Amino acid sequence: MSNLDIFVGETSGTAMLILLGGGVVAGVVLKRSKAFGAGWVAISFGWGFAVMVGAYLSAPKSAASLNPALTLALAIQGGIKWGDVPLYIGSELLGAMIGAFLVWVAYMGQFKAFLRDPEVLAAQPSEEGLVDQRTAPRAGPVLGIFSTGPEIRHPAQNLLTEIIGTFVLVIAILTQGLNQKGNGLGAIGILITAFVVVAVGLSLGGPTGYAINPARDLGPRIVHALLPLRNKGGSDWAYAWIPVVGPFAGAALAAGFYELAFA
Amino acid sequence: MSNLDIFVGETSGTAMLILLGGGVVAGVVLKRSKAFGAGWVAISFGWGFAVMVGAYLSAPKSAASLNPALTLALAIQGGIKWGDVPLYIGSELLGAMIGAFLVWVAYMGQFKAFLRDPEVLAAQPSEEGLVDQRTAPRAGPVLGIFSTGPEIRHPAQNLLTEIIGTFVLVIAILTQGLNQKGNGLGAIGILITAFVVVAVGLSLGGPTGYAINPARDLGPRIVHALLPLRNKGGSDWAYAWIPVVGPFAGAALAAGFYELAFA
Amino acid sequence: MSNLDIFVGETSGTAMLILLGGGVVAGVVLKRSKAFGAGWVAISFGWGFAVMVGAYLSAPKSAASLNPALTLALAIQGGIKWGDVPLYIGSELLGAMIGAFLVWVAYMGQFKAFLRDPEVLAAQPSEEGLVDQRTAPRAGPVLGIFSTGPEIRHPAQNLLTEIIGTFVLVIAILTQGLNQKGNGLGAIGILITAFVVVAVGLSLGGPTGYAINPARDLGPRIVHALLPLRNKGGSDWAYAWIPVVGPFAGAALAAGFYELAFA
Amino acid sequence: MSNLDIFVGETSGTAMLILLGGGVVAGVVLKRSKAFGAGWVAISFGWGFAVMVGAYLSAPKSAASLNPALTLALAIQGGIKWGDVPLYIGSELLGAMIGAFLVWVAYMGQFKAFLRDPEVLAAQPSEEGLVDQRTAPRAGPVLGIFSTGPEIRHPAQNLLTEIIGTFVLVIAILTQGLNQKGNGLGAIGILITAFVVVAVGLSLGGPTGYAINPARDLGPRIVHALLPLRNKGGSDWAYAWIPVVGPFAGAALAAGFYELAFA
Repeated sequence: MSNLDIFVGETSGTAMLILLGGGVVAGVVLKRSKAFGAGWVAISFGWGFAVMVGAYLSAPKSAASLNPALTLALAIQGGIKWGDVPLYIGSELLGAMIGAFLVWVAYMGQFKAFLRDPEVLAAQPSEEGLVDQRTAPRAGPVLGIFSTGPEIRHPAQNLLTEIIGTFVLVIAILTQGLNQKGNGLGAIGILITAFVVVAVGLSLGGPTGYAINPARDLGPRIVHALLPLRNKGGSDWAYAWIPVVGPFAGAALAAGFYELAFA
Repeated sequence: MSNLDIFVGETSGTAMLILLGGGVVAGVVLKRSKAFGAGWVAISFGWGFAVMVGAYLSAPKSAASLNPALTLALAIQGGIKWGDVPLYIGSELLGAMIGAFLVWVAYMGQFKAFLRDPEVLAAQPSEEGLVDQRTAPRAGPVLGIFSTGPEIRHPAQNLLTEIIGTFVLVIAILTQGLNQKGNGLGAIGILITAFVVVAVGLSLGGPTGYAINPARDLGPRIVHALLPLRNKGGSDWAYAWIPVVGPFAGAALAAGFYELAFA
Repeated sequence: MSNLDIFVGETSGTAMLILLGGGVVAGVVLKRSKAFGAGWVAISFGWGFAVMVGAYLSAPKSAASLNPALTLALAIQGGIKWGDVPLYIGSELLGAMIGAFLVWVAYMGQFKAFLRDPEVLAAQPSEEGLVDQRTAPRAGPVLGIFSTGPEIRHPAQNLLTEIIGTFVLVIAILTQGLNQKGNGLGAIGILITAFVVVAVGLSLGGPTGYAINPARDLGPRIVHALLPLRNKGGSDWAYAWIPVVGPFAGAALAAGFYELAFA
Repeated sequence: MSNLDIFVGETSGTAMLILLGGGVVAGVVLKRSKAFGAGWVAISFGWGFAVMVGAYLSAPKSAASLNPALTLALAIQGGIKWGDVPLYIGSELLGAMIGAFLVWVAYMGQFKAFLRDPEVLAAQPSEEGLVDQRTAPRAGPVLGIFSTGPEIRHPAQNLLTEIIGTFVLVIAILTQGLNQKGNGLGAIGILITAFVVVAVGLSLGGPTGYAINPARDLGPRIVHALLPLRNKGGSDWAYAWIPVVGPFAGAALAAGFYELAFA
């Protein structure tokens, strides 16, 4: 696995993950999309299959991590060399930014119509509205297509939820490999990983929108901040550390538990 | 398979099962969850994938039973030694309690908001309201996240429904192994078991919420009774024997039918 | 494959198919079921997984046909001996009747509550209401749990829809075997068949409710006629020939096309 | 692979694809269908499984392309000979027309009732209404069963969306083969391709209805133009080039990226 392989695999795979994952949120949330109102089942399966497609792109090249928290866990467990970790994480973050930009391209008309809709504007929280973290309304819908945000803002609780969700994701990925009987992460393993992500979304996504992946949240948040969309609302940087720290913590706990109990 | 393996496999797997299974109910039932109102399709697939993730954790260690009723059936069929049955069941019950507690942790904010909502309080059945088993309203929504309860309270009918549901679960698990052509319960077998659970939920979950697993119902019910949540409502102990006795009876019938027809 | 094997495999498998298939309709259609209103996605996946579970029971014993129309196609194609066809079809019909009865057992409370609900009674078509085939309302919801009925009653059109749906089912089952590379109908083949059934339900179930299986319709219709449920409405025998003749015709066409193009 | 094989495989497979794909739209969109209102989850899974069934028919005969844009990509990548491309594309277009006609046959009653419904007629855009591309309402529901149309009409944006969607489809199909470890496009590969199509539908279908396949759009549009349905509305030929050019461009880009990064 050369550095170029890792770069190509992780960048293209994470871009695909975020294009499809952000895309399903855009499709469900934005008016004048055919998927408008399709609900949480659509979103959970959409993110699951987004991981699947992203992993099919990455797996021939790299470890198909697509997730800095999983990269950390794989480094602890031995699947990724520690020296490769910075390249993995950088590629994942870059890929996530590319993917978020492509969501905007694919749904450009819907974004524009949405941001012009006066009902939307009235409901959009102002930047100042986010100052008081406890009472602020949840992030506006445009940011919600890019990044996650809590339904009830409470840093400690939100952090715990992200830790638990990522723990489930990572321990499931590590242990399902044990059931593959030496076949590695083949086509079936990737399909199963997709359903694991569906599981986390359905079951643990309710409170915070399940970042469970620092690149998935931070990359698109940066793109949101950079995109020159009028009325897009704030990028909620006050919350941004939770979907980074929580997933890393959850993944480290999962890797530790794996080493203790399964290795 | 050492005792420690069984303990680790069944406790961690059942905790995962209940965390994800209880989690999807919490996500769909509690207001201010992003999955609120996602409906029965979400719940059925959520429980199915919960079994899948739980089994991936358990399968490298134990029989991945996660269910005292299935443990009984596997003991009858020969897959589990009778001497190991108490350890299996104890581990499963412990795991279910841990999982139920983690659901509360992951959805703490939603639980608190829900229990403070006056509309909810008005609709919450009082402990006394459960005395007359025939006319009582169904269990309150908080208990419903932990344990099952009937839509129409009628012990004989509810018991029959649980027997039928568990019979389907167990006979499907036993016979699908026959189609694996000696590959054992590998990754595919676990995926298929997940879809069997989805099937039972979609098709037979309507009347009682398909416990089909004594630990799945009793463990979380104990946690519900212990958790110091104001306004949480009663734990409906009058119903608690049905999702224990029904699954054991259904599993024994299935194991007997399997021995008669397939062994 | 002994006669006893065929009998056990087809009877138990078809009973499972109808228990789970009828069950999902009961769960979605009957009030005071937790799955009430879950919609067509639930019903389509419910029937698909019903076929999966039924096939896991049958496949170790018989050809896992569970469907007289498929039995006919397999006889034409060579997978089932012509001499075994009557035993197959008889077992399938018996199994379907057992399954339909078990749906009634599992949902007994819901059936009773439903038939007592005055709103339901007012909307229930009388037996006489079915005389004029063109203007009659669609079959009442209770019959709809047992058997299929058209949304728009027009024998020729309804027959065509059943022929097309069964053609798709049968040609997909016959050709997917060709992609298995000699592995026969293993666990994966059965899972794929389940998704084929989901496909037919989602895409071609709208007009007539996709019997695509004479036993699936006729067996439960007989049980509906026999069950002593007050207010259950007529069994709509005038329509009963369509979901028998249509599937046989569609299956024969599919087998002929298979022999011509693929054999 | 003889010319006859290619003709039979691609024609029958694409007919199946469009019968099931168009069928799910008809079932969800047309009143007096049991699937009426089942929503975007039904449509996305319906199209995914439509590809699955179509591919099972085609794979024993041809490359199971079913899509002129994928055919182009496979020709670039080397999976299809350039000399066979015209036969592939012609067969796919013919199959798509047959499939679209069969949708009309299967849902004939619903189509007729729909076109007689005065509410529908009032909402139906007139042919002239389509002249101004920017302000025209989206295509009427009847055409929407046959062909795709944009929610917001903007040729450049719509083209970009189709390019991105097809890029995802094609790169996922090309790379998932790399994960199959030499097993070729077997039963599992076809199942995974189905989920890739579900992914594209859920995540990128919102703006234009994801043609991602020139034959899927053009064939049914021709049938819509030819069918003598009163009140069917215009066939929106002004839009017809986008779901042809976009998919070819997206597929060529994907094949180029594949050659550059993965070959």
